Amino acid sequence: MGSRPRTPAKIDRLDRDDPLAALRDAFNLDPHVIYLDGNSLGALPKATAGRLAQAVSREWGEGLIKSWNTHDWIGAPQRVGGKIARLIGAQSDEVLATDSTSVNLFKLVGAATMLAPARRTILSEAGNFPTDLYVMGGLEALLGRKVKLRVAPAESLLSEIDQDTAAVVLTHVHYAAGRRWPMAEITARAHAKGAMMIWDLSHSAGALAVDLNGAAADLAVGCGYKYLNGGPGAPAFLFVARRHQAMIRSPLSGWMGHEAPFAFADDYQPAAGVDRFLCGTPPILGLAALEASLDMLGEVDMAAVEAKGAALTELFIALAASRCPGLPLASPRAAKDRGLHLCFRHVDAYAVMQALIERGVIGDFRAPDLLRFGFSPLYVSYRDVWNAVEILADVLESRAFDDPRHHRRSAVT
Amino acid sequence: MGSRPRTPAKIDRLDRDDPLAALRDAFNLDPHVIYLDGNSLGALPKATAGRLAQAVSREWGEGLIKSWNTHDWIGAPQRVGGKIARLIGAQSDEVLATDSTSVNLFKLVGAATMLAPARRTILSEAGNFPTDLYVMGGLEALLGRKVKLRVAPAESLLSEIDQDTAAVVLTHVHYAAGRRWPMAEITARAHAKGAMMIWDLSHSAGALAVDLNGAAADLAVGCGYKYLNGGPGAPAFLFVARRHQAMIRSPLSGWMGHEAPFAFADDYQPAAGVDRFLCGTPPILGLAALEASLDMLGEVDMAAVEAKGAALTELFIALAASRCPGLPLASPRAAKDRGLHLCFRHVDAYAVMQALIERGVIGDFRAPDLLRFGFSPLYVSYRDVWNAVEILADVLESRAFDDPRHHRRSAVT
Repeated sequence: MGSRPRTPAKIDRLDRDDPLAALRDAFNLDPHVIYLDGNSLGALPKATAGRLAQAVSREWGEGLIKSWNTHDWIGAPQRVGGKIARLIGAQSDEVLATDSTSVNLFKLVGAATMLAPARRTILSEAGNFPTDLYVMGGLEALLGRKVKLRVAPAESLLSEIDQDTAAVVLTHVHYAAGRRWPMAEITARAHAKGAMMIWDLSHSAGALAVDLNGAAADLAVGCGYKYLNGGPGAPAFLFVARRHQAMIRSPLSGWMGHEAPFAFADDYQPAAGVDRFLCGTPPILGLAALEASLDMLGEVDMAAVEAKGAALTELFIALAASRCPGLPLASPRAAKDRGLHLCFRHVDAYAVMQALIERGVIGDFRAPDLLRFGFSPLYVSYRDVWNAVEILADVLESRAFDDPRHHRRSAVT
Repeated sequence: MGSRPRTPAKIDRLDRDDPLAALRDAFNLDPHVIYLDGNSLGALPKATAGRLAQAVSREWGEGLIKSWNTHDWIGAPQRVGGKIARLIGAQSDEVLATDSTSVNLFKLVGAATMLAPARRTILSEAGNFPTDLYVMGGLEALLGRKVKLRVAPAESLLSEIDQDTAAVVLTHVHYAAGRRWPMAEITARAHAKGAMMIWDLSHSAGALAVDLNGAAADLAVGCGYKYLNGGPGAPAFLFVARRHQAMIRSPLSGWMGHEAPFAFADDYQPAAGVDRFLCGTPPILGLAALEASLDMLGEVDMAAVEAKGAALTELFIALAASRCPGLPLASPRAAKDRGLHLCFRHVDAYAVMQALIERGVIGDFRAPDLLRFGFSPLYVSYRDVWNAVEILADVLESRAFDDPRHHRRSAVT
């Protein structure tokens, strides 16, 4: 995108040539809205409402308890996980859709510390997505002196990996800056010191051509409600590389991770494979919604998704540089170093975002001073990018964000 | 129910006089089915499909990310928890609807061990619902020598509580036998030794007039998909008595339990009150379905629910004793000592249950030899009980269960 298109006509040509353009019709999106927040909550696939209505009325209402077998509710975490596997470079028997990202991260970090009892440090990044740090801190508080969370700035983090490091826990694409860690290289650095590598894919699954096995990753978690469009609070997922499955144990050893849950034995015997990372009864309605979205994704090529995402973000950066001077980009300049969202710094970022939302451009605010825009290639068009920058420029020039209404904070920002 | 009704006409009079009879119309139930498995998966309330369709199409599809505020998604765990509180004798600020029963139990048992680091034993019952034992065993494996799970038979359990007991963890109504612990008495016994009392209400919430605060209970968990009719794998709930809320900490300290999740600070500060037991992003679709059911329950008097449940189970026992001689009851004989499900022992229990299901009487099998029947007073009628016993008698007399089809096991029993 060296020569940036300067006219709506040229922009529209990009949309006509977009191999993913037809996917937008698979979503229910108000045509008056430019939705640049799919990195926080993905849009609603058209197939979801019908799939969920079927799960409720036919499977639950008519099938009742029998649907655990007849509609294979019992296999849903594995079946849905298998459909996520393709998107993240994993085998279908390495992924489960279950619980929340936070709970899944606790399972994996706890498991990693149990695998390497002589190593006491969990290493992560200062400013990592807070729930990841909080979950690791909670594990530390529970375990007392057995485990220590060490947090280092991104720049010096790699030099902190040592013989005491049980696991390195990083978010592949940073939730704010959008900075992307080079997965294979970082994983190799962890392995060189004998540490496990745990990736949080919340901001990359469904957006980038993630290749966990290509990177020799050990463990991973990710989110179902962002680029996977599973709905608010959708079940999350976890990944355990095959080579670890025989030895690893989940600290959250609920009955669904037992080798024979319906034998009702007092003693716990972990199921074979990744199944041992199941815990309680699977959330069937949430899984049905997530599966509808994954089925819609079907055979979509993740390399094409990532390429379109790079083009969309490049276009936004170029147009914003031209139309919104003095709005500094807070994300890496090179597409290969980013995910599919961008942050810009503005002293009144919260109010600016409210003014944008009022005008139909939905992004979000991240404290303290970031405007964040996400570009899901499944439903964001080049024309959306053009229009969004035009509206952003107008909001900034007119200082529409000075309106006191736009400074009133909501519970969720 | 000393004099048991012997004719369908007398049975129908019980239904006519039943103050809860009208509630059955609030459920979608096939009139040809006698559903005696609401203790495993509650029936579908008529309001649920519409509520869920609204959550999907209007709140998610149209409201998109804004619905966290405009539809108060962010307050859903507390709001739905508050609606459960009334049913279990708790205050609305003591209950959250979140995660699974297994995950919630891990939080509470982990929290109890952190509150009493000098005590090392968690005491539970042999033959307790397996996931409870497995979750406590997982905590033990994670913590190493800091915590020891001790499992004792029900008969001798109370004498095992001692100065080393951090927590006593019991299921109020046993999942198989249906035996009910006297909550206030057992809680007092735990407190007398300085131990915390943790109740699992999975088989009593929505069925019995549970009174957690009346019993001075400390902590509790329970299930959303049994008598609360929240749908397959519905969010579960947890209870933390107000007096503990200031000191207690959750070992699963995700961002939703932070005092200011959207400040995105690196350091964890637990939210005030029970909110600190939230972990990941709440499952909004599952919570919407659960809330629809709780709203349908509205102001239903739990004492009336328990009384009808006692009458239904008494009737079933009396009729079965008369019509199915030689089928031993495996549940306590006195209604006050039971929940709302009954077990009977039969050497071919699995096949008998399959034959019953084929004839429209849906109960379930619990290994190794139990026929289990649950009687949700919200939608089971006295006539259902009469008809079910007639069909059971016929299946046993005709040995319809000898059909080889009925001996083939499914994944979920």
